[in-house]
Amino acid sequence: MKTKDKIIQVSLRLFNEKGERSITTNHIADEMGISPGLLYYHFTNKEAIIRAIFEQYTDYITQSIVPPDEHSDAEEFLRQYCEQIFDSIWRFRFLHANMPILLEKDNELICQYLQTHKYLEERASEALHWLIEHDLIQIDEAQIAILVDLMRLVTGFWVGFSMINQKRQRLTRKQVSQGIIHLIALLEPYGTAQGERLFASLKEPYLKRA
Amino acid sequence: MKTKDKIIQVSLRLFNEKGERSITTNHIADEMGISPGLLYYHFTNKEAIIRAIFEQYTDYITQSIVPPDEHSDAEEFLRQYCEQIFDSIWRFRFLHANMPILLEKDNELICQYLQTHKYLEERASEALHWLIEHDLIQIDEAQIAILVDLMRLVTGFWVGFSMINQKRQRLTRKQVSQGIIHLIALLEPYGTAQGERLFASLKEPYLKRA
Repeated sequence: MKTKDKIIQVSLRLFNEKGERSITTNHIADEMGISPGLLYYHFTNKEAIIRAIFEQYTDYITQSIVPPDEHSDAEEFLRQYCEQIFDSIWRFRFLHANMPILLEKDNELICQYLQTHKYLEERASEALHWLIEHDLIQIDEAQIAILVDLMRLVTGFWVGFSMINQKRQRLTRKQVSQGIIHLIALLEPYGTAQGERLFASLKEPYLKRA
Repeated sequence: MKTKDKIIQVSLRLFNEKGERSITTNHIADEMGISPGLLYYHFTNKEAIIRAIFEQYTDYITQSIVPPDEHSDAEEFLRQYCEQIFDSIWRFRFLHANMPILLEKDNELICQYLQTHKYLEERASEALHWLIEHDLIQIDEAQIAILVDLMRLVTGFWVGFSMINQKRQRLTRKQVSQGIIHLIALLEPYGTAQGERLFASLKEPYLKRA
C-alpha cells in the first residue's frame, strides 16, 4: 500500500477509535512509525486528511447505495439499502459523530458533503418511488420531499443522537445498526398490507438484537 | 439586572449571533464594558457560562412544555406544543447547533442535558397518549418509544441539519420554525380521519411561509 493510502487508513482507524479531536498529525505519524515531515509531504494538515477520508466515504456510498434494479426483490433491495447505509455510517463513524464541527472548520468539506448529501437524497427519493410502484407504500408526492429530509436526519444524526444518549461512550456496531429500526419506522405507517408484512420482516432481526 | 444574569444574557446573544466557538470570555467582558477579572469572579470559565445558559434553557422548557390539560382543545394544544419547542430551539440555537461538541468537552453538561432530554421524552410520550385517547392518531404501544426517539431526533438536530444544508450560513427564525412541518409529518401518517384534518390545519401556516 502506498504511504498516502496508509496514512488515510491509519487516520480513519485512530479517529474512529479515539475521536478526531484527540488525534494530531503527530499521533498519526507515530502510529505509522514515519516522520511528521513525510506525513506533511502527503497532507499539509489534518483537514486535508479528513477531506481524503471523506472522499473514500463518498466512493463507498456511490458504489454501495445504487438505484433498485427492475428485477430486484423488494425485501432484498430494502435490506441491502438499510444495511449499506448503516455500514457506511459505522465505517466512517467519526465523521458522523462530529459533522457540524468538522464542517464549521472547512468550507471545502462542506461542498463535498453537500454533493454526497444530494446523491443520498436522490437515492432515497428513488427508493420511495420504487416502493410506491411496487404497491408497498402509499404516499402523496408532496410528502415525499419531507420524508426524504426525515430519512436524511435519521441517518445523518443517528450517531450523534446515540452517543449523547449514552454519555458519549464509544458506540458498538450493534448500536449503530439499531438506527435501521428507526429508518424503517419512518416508512412503516405508509405501508400497504403487503408493505406492512415486508417492514415487519425487515425489522425482525434488529428487534431481536435490541 | 445583576451582573451575573447580565453576563448570561450577553453571552447567549453573542453565542447565537456569532457562534460559540468564535466568542471568548474576553469578548463577553468587552461587550459588557467590564474587566475580565469581574467576569471570572462570577464564572470560572466559558464552560460555566454555557452550563448557566443551559439551566435557563431547561427552565424555559419545563415552564413552557407542559402536559395537556384535560380541557385542552386539541388543535390549540398541539400548536402551542410545536411553537414552544421550536421557540426554545430558536432562543438557544447555539446550543442546538453545536450540541455534540459542547457535550464532548463537559461531562457536567451531559448530565444536565440527559435530564432535560428525559423531561422532553416524557412530555412527548404523554402528548402521543393524549392524541390516542382523543382519537386523533392510531399507533401501537410498541411503536410509541420509537416515534418519541424520532421526535427527539427531529427537534434536537433540526438546527444542525438546516445549517449544514445552507452551508452554515446563519439561520433565520422562519427556517427554524420549518422544523415544525417535519415534526408534524412524523405524526401525520398515524392520523385518524379527524386527526388528518387537524394536522393539515396545523401545517397550513408553515407551508404558506415555506
